[in-house]
Amino acid sequence: MLLEQLRKDVLEANLELVKRGLVLYTFGNASGVDREQGLVVIKPSGVDYDDLRPEHMVVTDLHGKIVEGNLNPSSDLDTHTLLYREFPTIGAVVHTHSEFATSFAQAGLPIPAFGTTHADYFYGPVPVTAPLTDEAIGGRYVHETGLAIVERFRNPEVIDPLAVPACLVNGHAPFVWGRTAHDAAHNAVVLEAVARMAYRTIGLRANADCVSQALLDRHYFRKHGANATYGQK
Amino acid sequence: MLLEQLRKDVLEANLELVKRGLVLYTFGNASGVDREQGLVVIKPSGVDYDDLRPEHMVVTDLHGKIVEGNLNPSSDLDTHTLLYREFPTIGAVVHTHSEFATSFAQAGLPIPAFGTTHADYFYGPVPVTAPLTDEAIGGRYVHETGLAIVERFRNPEVIDPLAVPACLVNGHAPFVWGRTAHDAAHNAVVLEAVARMAYRTIGLRANADCVSQALLDRHYFRKHGANATYGQK
Amino acid sequence: MLLEQLRKDVLEANLELVKRGLVLYTFGNASGVDREQGLVVIKPSGVDYDDLRPEHMVVTDLHGKIVEGNLNPSSDLDTHTLLYREFPTIGAVVHTHSEFATSFAQAGLPIPAFGTTHADYFYGPVPVTAPLTDEAIGGRYVHETGLAIVERFRNPEVIDPLAVPACLVNGHAPFVWGRTAHDAAHNAVVLEAVARMAYRTIGLRANADCVSQALLDRHYFRKHGANATYGQK
Amino acid sequence: MLLEQLRKDVLEANLELVKRGLVLYTFGNASGVDREQGLVVIKPSGVDYDDLRPEHMVVTDLHGKIVEGNLNPSSDLDTHTLLYREFPTIGAVVHTHSEFATSFAQAGLPIPAFGTTHADYFYGPVPVTAPLTDEAIGGRYVHETGLAIVERFRNPEVIDPLAVPACLVNGHAPFVWGRTAHDAAHNAVVLEAVARMAYRTIGLRANADCVSQALLDRHYFRKHGANATYGQK
Repeated sequence: MLLEQLRKDVLEANLELVKRGLVLYTFGNASGVDREQGLVVIKPSGVDYDDLRPEHMVVTDLHGKIVEGNLNPSSDLDTHTLLYREFPTIGAVVHTHSEFATSFAQAGLPIPAFGTTHADYFYGPVPVTAPLTDEAIGGRYVHETGLAIVERFRNPEVIDPLAVPACLVNGHAPFVWGRTAHDAAHNAVVLEAVARMAYRTIGLRANADCVSQALLDRHYFRKHGANATYGQK
Repeated sequence: MLLEQLRKDVLEANLELVKRGLVLYTFGNASGVDREQGLVVIKPSGVDYDDLRPEHMVVTDLHGKIVEGNLNPSSDLDTHTLLYREFPTIGAVVHTHSEFATSFAQAGLPIPAFGTTHADYFYGPVPVTAPLTDEAIGGRYVHETGLAIVERFRNPEVIDPLAVPACLVNGHAPFVWGRTAHDAAHNAVVLEAVARMAYRTIGLRANADCVSQALLDRHYFRKHGANATYGQK
Repeated sequence: MLLEQLRKDVLEANLELVKRGLVLYTFGNASGVDREQGLVVIKPSGVDYDDLRPEHMVVTDLHGKIVEGNLNPSSDLDTHTLLYREFPTIGAVVHTHSEFATSFAQAGLPIPAFGTTHADYFYGPVPVTAPLTDEAIGGRYVHETGLAIVERFRNPEVIDPLAVPACLVNGHAPFVWGRTAHDAAHNAVVLEAVARMAYRTIGLRANADCVSQALLDRHYFRKHGANATYGQK
Repeated sequence: MLLEQLRKDVLEANLELVKRGLVLYTFGNASGVDREQGLVVIKPSGVDYDDLRPEHMVVTDLHGKIVEGNLNPSSDLDTHTLLYREFPTIGAVVHTHSEFATSFAQAGLPIPAFGTTHADYFYGPVPVTAPLTDEAIGGRYVHETGLAIVERFRNPEVIDPLAVPACLVNGHAPFVWGRTAHDAAHNAVVLEAVARMAYRTIGLRANADCVSQALLDRHYFRKHGANATYGQK
């Protein structure tokens, strides 16, 4: 069986989403990539989380061709593989319909960087894609969803996908990523917490200020990069 | 004892509503229909969920006449039986006072199709009935509740009740249905999740757009109909 | 030991409030009355719920004089005893700072009868008291709190305290009652659920309509009075 | 090992924050001070709560110099030690990013004293600091965070830090304190409950009144000071 450890990591990331209340029934999916072998491990489509085992994970190449596995892969596979091809530094992708992040996506609004909880994980607002055109929806829809995400990380300037490891798909829900399956799931959980607090902040004061660039820098680089000081060495 | 499996399925649907936090105390009820025998199995009225056993379920005909059972059936029985008579494709009905769906019902507002979570399950807005007249309330109230639901699936055009398997009763709460008791309960749980997100979406942007017809089609038919691709075969 | 069964019932009502998430730490209190003996059983003040035993309950007369018990009674005792003296049909009183009911109390607003969940338990809006005057607060404050509640059931017309078994104390929190300790706790749990839905209803539509008198009658009298049909005989 | 009991108390306070849902992953931290020895015990940075043991706690002096421990102390250490130096009556400090209190901090708004739940614990509004300047953020940031808190307890008049044992840091989150680690955690839990209710109160009535000075006095001094009557002696 290919990629035994990655299968376990991807399964564990899927289960973390359930444990933290981010997914209902079979909603949501997580995947991981092995960059050396050019292979992706992803959750099968529509299988109960209670029944999921590492051997149920589906292995595909970077264009979604199934290499190992008897089950259908997640129906969002083409978004995952596109993100792996376009964002070479990421190692895992998570998709959920978590309540508050999805509500921002449905409202077509980015999640502003209102505070240091946000700044600890996301170096700026979490963007929302443009609405997909009818042609994109009627065509290679899942692939087009990935293109809409990638577009947000190209304009108006290049953003490192690991510095803002999430994007809201307009009218749909968040995609989140990270270096590892563990990190991607962790980022998805924090995104939902940040979205909850942004919702409350807007509820209290519709035009609340974002954190200053100085505070964004201070918190983000306290946890990330060569000079990070948070946690244990 | 009649309809042993259906009794178990109906009980399980009732318990799923409790497990998912949709019902408080003895609120809510679920039923199922056996189309061949023309019999309905429904929860008894006001019995603690902890004490419910398959043999407590009440069996009636399609006009609510009790065929088997010593307990009083749910006080909403006449709504259930009317829906079975009017919607020949449905196999089960669920009624809850779940918090957010009920809040839309109390506000007299439909739940708009704001996103793909909604589109995966409901092919358009979840409608709300007209308020019942005093005559309807003072007359065959529970039956009239069913008529108000059915009315929403007749005008302005015919809607397939399985394509939008729920309706909000104005000033009251949702009724939800499906092919099986399992599906009806599942739809009720998703309805509440969709209502929560619609509430948040409106909170963020009072006039948020609904999904496009193209996106509604794409998501709905990914999970439903002959060309569905979601899940395992 | 006096009133063994009532001690158990009162303790159980207190624990139900904890189980349903209505009280935090030692907030909240429940009491019951024995009308024949003219004795009140009430939770002691500031004791952890985990440690509460029937024998810790404090027994007083209807004016709050301690008859049995070594612990201080709840600091809200004088409100409880006043309600027992003024409302001769009630058998138990519960006080919580449950989140949504308290938020209405803090906003100085009654909870409107927006739907049938409300109508099933409360025959009209749940009233809010006038703010207490500085003199009342500086005087027999806990007694004055009771007087402010009683005032709401006198004007503009007599309301049966069992038909609307709750009142919000302005700037404070709800007091709830019932025929038995079980009923009072049950009513407090439903009041919080009703308050949550009323809050959401207002959030969706600031001027939502209340249920009609016909619907209020239909639902209230389905569960209450000589012609009630809900539940088992 | 220094300060065995205080290590246990500080660990227990940290775990209480997890148990009550105030912290996610490794967010948040608690510390305690031994005034006689002039030593502070604080949670290590970024260690899973499941793995925390009393011996992992870090001991520092009142200026943050590590006296015992192999792990890095919480990155917020300099705020804790400043508060101990400036507020001589406090014995413990807690920092969380709890959802509703943080939302007020992100909105740059104090938490008004809307009701008696608030008045029982906080003798007036819970203040919010001024936003930190870019210089402060770029300099001794964590120390400056403490200075911004202390500033709020100096102007316009002296406030006893134990009478309002919390402060919101603008764009960040709450710091909370108390006489003991147990009290500080307890106050943090109540602060979050109070923030939730204040958020709802504002949602119901944007300009809701605060409690009167008389009611604030009555409730605060019922639980605090020489004439407190709440609880058991």
